[in-house]
Amino acid sequence: MSRDTADPTKAGGRLPPEADEDLEDLALREDYALNPDFVAMVVDAADRGDAERLRELLGALHPADVADLMGFLSADYREEVLAHLDPEALAEILSELDTEIREDLLDAVAPATLAKALEELDSDDAADVVDDLDDDKRAQVLAAMPEGDRAAIETSLAYGDETAGRLMQREVVAAPQFWTVGQTIDHFRSAGDDLPELFFDVYVVDPSYRPVGAAPVSHLLRSRRDVPLAQIMEPVTEIPVDMDQEEVAYIFDKYHLISAPVVEPGGRLVGQITVDDIVGVIQEESEEDILALAGVSDAGRNADIRDMVRSRLPWLMINTVTAAVAASVIHAFEGEITKLVTLAMLMPIVASLGGNAGTQTLTVAVRALANRELSAYNAVRTVGREMIVGVLNGLALAAVTGTVIFLLFHQVMLSVTFGLALVVNFFMAALAGALVPLVLDRMGRDPAVSSSVFVTFVTDFTGFFSFLGLAAFLLL
Amino acid sequence: MSRDTADPTKAGGRLPPEADEDLEDLALREDYALNPDFVAMVVDAADRGDAERLRELLGALHPADVADLMGFLSADYREEVLAHLDPEALAEILSELDTEIREDLLDAVAPATLAKALEELDSDDAADVVDDLDDDKRAQVLAAMPEGDRAAIETSLAYGDETAGRLMQREVVAAPQFWTVGQTIDHFRSAGDDLPELFFDVYVVDPSYRPVGAAPVSHLLRSRRDVPLAQIMEPVTEIPVDMDQEEVAYIFDKYHLISAPVVEPGGRLVGQITVDDIVGVIQEESEEDILALAGVSDAGRNADIRDMVRSRLPWLMINTVTAAVAASVIHAFEGEITKLVTLAMLMPIVASLGGNAGTQTLTVAVRALANRELSAYNAVRTVGREMIVGVLNGLALAAVTGTVIFLLFHQVMLSVTFGLALVVNFFMAALAGALVPLVLDRMGRDPAVSSSVFVTFVTDFTGFFSFLGLAAFLLL
Repeated sequence: MSRDTADPTKAGGRLPPEADEDLEDLALREDYALNPDFVAMVVDAADRGDAERLRELLGALHPADVADLMGFLSADYREEVLAHLDPEALAEILSELDTEIREDLLDAVAPATLAKALEELDSDDAADVVDDLDDDKRAQVLAAMPEGDRAAIETSLAYGDETAGRLMQREVVAAPQFWTVGQTIDHFRSAGDDLPELFFDVYVVDPSYRPVGAAPVSHLLRSRRDVPLAQIMEPVTEIPVDMDQEEVAYIFDKYHLISAPVVEPGGRLVGQITVDDIVGVIQEESEEDILALAGVSDAGRNADIRDMVRSRLPWLMINTVTAAVAASVIHAFEGEITKLVTLAMLMPIVASLGGNAGTQTLTVAVRALANRELSAYNAVRTVGREMIVGVLNGLALAAVTGTVIFLLFHQVMLSVTFGLALVVNFFMAALAGALVPLVLDRMGRDPAVSSSVFVTFVTDFTGFFSFLGLAAFLLL
Repeated sequence: MSRDTADPTKAGGRLPPEADEDLEDLALREDYALNPDFVAMVVDAADRGDAERLRELLGALHPADVADLMGFLSADYREEVLAHLDPEALAEILSELDTEIREDLLDAVAPATLAKALEELDSDDAADVVDDLDDDKRAQVLAAMPEGDRAAIETSLAYGDETAGRLMQREVVAAPQFWTVGQTIDHFRSAGDDLPELFFDVYVVDPSYRPVGAAPVSHLLRSRRDVPLAQIMEPVTEIPVDMDQEEVAYIFDKYHLISAPVVEPGGRLVGQITVDDIVGVIQEESEEDILALAGVSDAGRNADIRDMVRSRLPWLMINTVTAAVAASVIHAFEGEITKLVTLAMLMPIVASLGGNAGTQTLTVAVRALANRELSAYNAVRTVGREMIVGVLNGLALAAVTGTVIFLLFHQVMLSVTFGLALVVNFFMAALAGALVPLVLDRMGRDPAVSSSVFVTFVTDFTGFFSFLGLAAFLLL
């Protein structure tokens, strides 16, 4: 499929109907991102109030791309686009949207329209959307839905946020152990529309509806009609309904699962999770980790400016306190700095390089914990290796910087002081970078969130103290 | 399935055969990580040379867990464990292992054993393992394999690293457009072992073997036998064989794909990629980004100490140069520092807080680029918002720190100087944090890899220069 951008000069004019394919090609760049020219065409059509053109442009997009388009538009244009979508398209786009944009948009949709749209979605996706409504509107929307759909959404919302229960779809395909392949296929042909749109496994259940195995659909297809399900089924990994979604994603990744049955505490089958839901969870969880390591408390990219400030200021405040405490060490050595003002120039370098080394170790440790590659069994060895690497890197940099400092200032002891302080700080950086995440994890805290404050404090403090202390001792 | 750890006191003793289930329960903790006690049991059995016990312990583990176990063991124990695996188990474990451990282990396995093991794997997994062999051994192993398997591996290796061609499996299920559901199922029942172990879509192809659609297996199962495939097939997103795996993962995530056909430049079907392969790619790519942002050039967790140093030292070297250049600004203001040594204490705080603010903005920008949420269309607006947020955060912190500084030092102008410098640095942090990733991306460089060096340099330099410069102007 070619994604070459068509000649943009023809973008402005009205295209003949047979040029629809061109519009689709124009919509996305080669890397499947939305084409900025296409976004400009949508904005232009909205400005001119050209409803027909707007519908034509939106018709060229997959719902996931319309959701992306919303991210590029300002609030007014979003509502303009919204007005041109039918219930099914609206439903799919709502379930694709980022939470921040969705919350804004939902305000602009009438409860009855929303109820109609939600009926088009699977129970898990509908619950996700309803969860973003404020209490009043939620009640109105649910009241406008048919009994069955409402019950499914309310059951889903009763499970905790980010649990298997919230992630699962209640629609499953199950069959008793004693059925044959032929019986099962006949049942599917007559059940028709009552089956989920797509499924990958038939769960084989005992009389209490507890899963005892799963028959992959491809195994059903290639087996003879008289083969019993019990013969082609495979063992299943059951997911407890209250398991955290991060854990669920870890299990899917580790055991290469395509789908897994979700069970209540008694073992009864209540739903299933499929791997396509997990792809989203993995993206979300690694996104959270990346941002947390940088001190951004939630994604908040599409949030308004107030939310952006709120997601970043707390961490900056904490860092101000730790930076001030670390810098207060300098206060104790003001006499030394007055005597040799070069110290003031060199000390931030020691602190900053230690901070970099600490960040390297802590990031590796945080990832190893997330991947279950670090535990009590190998903690001592891991910390030891980090310390060896830290000291080796410190020695290498000490040799280089020590030489440069000697060439600049012609003072051997200044070079020695700087090099020693660097090695000490790298040692502490490795120790703190490896231990802090381990301790936070043992305490049940997320090491991605708060490790870097501690580690930066240690490397700032050690950097200033070791360099100025050694200078007082060796130089002055 | 209960994962409660059984009473560890019985771990040491020999268990009766019916206690196998207990051993499985003991192997993993509740979070599906390997239990440190279980690892200790494996080490103990290896120390005692108790082959029977070792086989019993390994038998209780899924291949993915044996691969995890390898990560916890030192090299000697790994080879001991390896010796007790049959070819099929060996193959599965090799394909699960991290590259670093795998390279070590492969040295210890005889070419003939390896050839036998690789025959058990899909072509993509086998090629991955062969890719880690050194040239001599690769030739020996390939020579020991049957013609067909060898050709498949060589074809796969001919595609570039991290492309769709390397990721895909050549085993696909395809059917001509004019077949009915019944014909297709009959064909599967007679083909039997020639079909892939698991598949989710039947690709419908034209006479030139170009995909025209895909029939999900669940649709086949619920349709009547006389329905033609053309009627139940759905449109497919074709993946060019040379597409980068990160792009492939983006498309799977965006369009919620379960499988997709891979095509040659002419459009001919050559293989398929399934979503379970993509889960691994997403993990790998986000891992690379997280580590790159922290200045670690590759995972290298299980690497030896030399590789760990090599993956971290280059970035530290570059940072030393930029830190030294930034600190050289201080040199120009040594006179001011001698007059008011408090400046030496406060200047690192301005630089360090600016660095934190810059890291926040740059991480958000890097992620927005990776998710295709940032492009030429909204670049100006995004940079503008970041600058507003930066200045607001700067003002908030300036108010707090300015007050504290006044209370400590009773100098209004020192507070004003510090606050102004902080706001200037936050402004530059936001500007650099948003622009640097955009520019690197436009230049075709990976913004995750090198952004932070530039941004930290800007915030260090601006921090020192604005604070000391303003001090010279306002205070002295």
